[in-house]
Amino acid sequence: MSYAMLANTLRSAMEKQDTVAIEELVCEFQPADLAEFLRHEETEVCLKILAHLALAERAEVFGYLPLTLQAEVAEEMTLEGLAQLLSSMESDERADLFNLMEEERQVAVLKLMAHEEREDLRRMASYAEGTVGAIMTSNYASVPERASVAEALDIVRKTAPDAETIYQIYVLDNIQRLVGTLSLRELILNRPSMPISSIMTTELLTTYPDEPQEDASRMISRYDLLALPVIDAQQRLVGIVTYDDAMDVAEQEATEDILKGGTVGNLEGSLREASLFTLYRKRIVWLVLLVFANIFSAAGIALYEETISTYIVLVFFLPLLVGSAGNAGSQASTLMVRGLATGDVLITDWARMFAREFLVALGLGLTMALAVSLIGAVRGGPEIAMVVASSMVAVVMLGSLVGMSLPFLLNKLGWDPATASAPLVATIADAVGVLVYFAIATAILGL
Amino acid sequence: MSYAMLANTLRSAMEKQDTVAIEELVCEFQPADLAEFLRHEETEVCLKILAHLALAERAEVFGYLPLTLQAEVAEEMTLEGLAQLLSSMESDERADLFNLMEEERQVAVLKLMAHEEREDLRRMASYAEGTVGAIMTSNYASVPERASVAEALDIVRKTAPDAETIYQIYVLDNIQRLVGTLSLRELILNRPSMPISSIMTTELLTTYPDEPQEDASRMISRYDLLALPVIDAQQRLVGIVTYDDAMDVAEQEATEDILKGGTVGNLEGSLREASLFTLYRKRIVWLVLLVFANIFSAAGIALYEETISTYIVLVFFLPLLVGSAGNAGSQASTLMVRGLATGDVLITDWARMFAREFLVALGLGLTMALAVSLIGAVRGGPEIAMVVASSMVAVVMLGSLVGMSLPFLLNKLGWDPATASAPLVATIADAVGVLVYFAIATAILGL
Repeated sequence: MSYAMLANTLRSAMEKQDTVAIEELVCEFQPADLAEFLRHEETEVCLKILAHLALAERAEVFGYLPLTLQAEVAEEMTLEGLAQLLSSMESDERADLFNLMEEERQVAVLKLMAHEEREDLRRMASYAEGTVGAIMTSNYASVPERASVAEALDIVRKTAPDAETIYQIYVLDNIQRLVGTLSLRELILNRPSMPISSIMTTELLTTYPDEPQEDASRMISRYDLLALPVIDAQQRLVGIVTYDDAMDVAEQEATEDILKGGTVGNLEGSLREASLFTLYRKRIVWLVLLVFANIFSAAGIALYEETISTYIVLVFFLPLLVGSAGNAGSQASTLMVRGLATGDVLITDWARMFAREFLVALGLGLTMALAVSLIGAVRGGPEIAMVVASSMVAVVMLGSLVGMSLPFLLNKLGWDPATASAPLVATIADAVGVLVYFAIATAILGL
Repeated sequence: MSYAMLANTLRSAMEKQDTVAIEELVCEFQPADLAEFLRHEETEVCLKILAHLALAERAEVFGYLPLTLQAEVAEEMTLEGLAQLLSSMESDERADLFNLMEEERQVAVLKLMAHEEREDLRRMASYAEGTVGAIMTSNYASVPERASVAEALDIVRKTAPDAETIYQIYVLDNIQRLVGTLSLRELILNRPSMPISSIMTTELLTTYPDEPQEDASRMISRYDLLALPVIDAQQRLVGIVTYDDAMDVAEQEATEDILKGGTVGNLEGSLREASLFTLYRKRIVWLVLLVFANIFSAAGIALYEETISTYIVLVFFLPLLVGSAGNAGSQASTLMVRGLATGDVLITDWARMFAREFLVALGLGLTMALAVSLIGAVRGGPEIAMVVASSMVAVVMLGSLVGMSLPFLLNKLGWDPATASAPLVATIADAVGVLVYFAIATAILGL
């Protein structure tokens, strides 16, 4: 059954309070799908549905729920139920949930957990948001350096970590330092008596718990890894970051950059579920800043009030010209911001990029000047046509070069290049456009 | 050694033409890093460096090169060398390269390949760009339905596909139909005599070769899969899409959406390496379209020329007001476009989103009216302050609601919601802003 069909059938079973049907149906869902279903339901309903699942499935479905909903549901659980659930969750996911619980409840629930789980949870919960530590899991397969292939396979069988983390096996020396890695594939393809030290890879890609998540995510994507080991300053293995978490990080990063490109602050969660005040708060700062930035355009207009009152027709072309400068600038900044984010363009490429943009913008400006000079000739005669055509070339080139350079400049200042949003570039291009346009008009019209 | 150090050492070894050192160094690179190094070098150099690698490594490094460079290098190779290389490449990657070769060379190289490889390449090269078929690989592990765990492990050992594709094993019936799947983990954890039909999963997530790539990528991300099987209409297994290709697709999709959000056409490749004409072509269309769209703003201004010439001060506030409408609109469209792209917001959510936007925009408009009315009072007195304050509330709300609704409207028309770019929204908001502003001014100032 498709997700939509399953969801509808489950909904009607819930209305009829048909417990037997509910129990059967919830087992048919993919865990991610059941979580998708539950996120639109009340906390009460979530609790009831989750109770129908065996512990392992419950923990998996629970892990797919949005964090805020997890916290709400967890609050309604018994302490014993919560401790059980935490023990079965992924170590990075349970740490996130744990950090949202009240301190009193944290202490109480820790008491009910086994010693090792408790220590793991305490440690994992201590890493700051956005760091590798916060997304790594301590659920990995490790074997001692001296093991043979057969012994290593045996250890892996006994510890049997999660499906996603069993395929890369980490080789540790006697003080837990990471000395090599090998894949489950290599284990099953080699002779059982072979010592693993002779087949493991010793050229290791690693990261540290306090590195930024996006760097780890980028490494996993660049080297096509299943998992990236995380070590401490003494080279001891402390956890691994898996490819599925890397995919989630990459998606969040893209969202953050896209929102920044629209001058919206990072939502850190769902747009559908964000409070109205949060949305207001994430938008108002830039809007007000840009109002004040627009005063520069306004001041430019005030400066040329005389020119304008003599040739009111110039106002007609104002939105065309400043709009075009802003649009060309937005294009240029969008290209650079994304190029820098994906690593396609490097900060050191500025001069080369500037030269290329100069030529491209010249071509764009000339084409648009042609378009606008026709309108200019019709509306205001040959002199006005000349004013608007030469202004168009100038403002499109200036707008493009500003838009293209701004991400590099912001980076030099230690800011995120993605701050060079379309609205910010458009506002700067507006001010530049107004000044250039009226200056050219004043010169050509001999005012 | 870090990538930067390795690259520098290799560069100096190349200058000294120290072949022994070069040979040693190239083996120390991660394949993705060596490709990164080579993409900045001449075709000649690439050929020489690649010749130092064993075939398997050469094929891997080659697969990481940008497609255009691959084609250039391949053109310089001997037919025999190229046939060897193609035989060792991933089946999806070689199909992409094959499609870029001249027909004559395609025919010649196919003749030099083994029958099975040739058939595979022909089939893979026939899928359209952007479809699942174009990124799937035929390199997977499959076992017959009747096998035991021990027999299955043996088959997997013998076929020993790539590291990334060995971990999910596909169970086929006697006419190659996909009937189940199980992981290598399950194989090694179960008793050897167990029939695989009793441990395999029969609830299958699958896709078809002609589905869009991004749908497969989203499924892999949503369900945390290592690979997604691709079946034909008869349910026969034709290939698999692996998680690393899904990550690449997700990154390309994000780039495409971001560029679209800046009214830049999809570059399908590197910004650094794109030709100037390509860049011009990807930008000019929207720029010219927006010039003509801006004529609506200009026409609005022409309509109120009398009001403007009476109160020139109104022009001073024009950029502030229309800029703010555009900025608020860009924010709203950015939020919706991303929400729709990630599946956070559904098309059916329009009414709810509209109601929420109405309230948020009201808050934003009132705050900004306060800011702008102060400037209005200072520059133009209380009447002008009233005009600009009430205009601000109106244009911010209209801009926001237009920006928020446009992605939904575009979707209804069968367009990509991401077409609702900041510049497009700003241009529409400009026109609406001009009309509303001067209408309010004319009314309040009693003209």
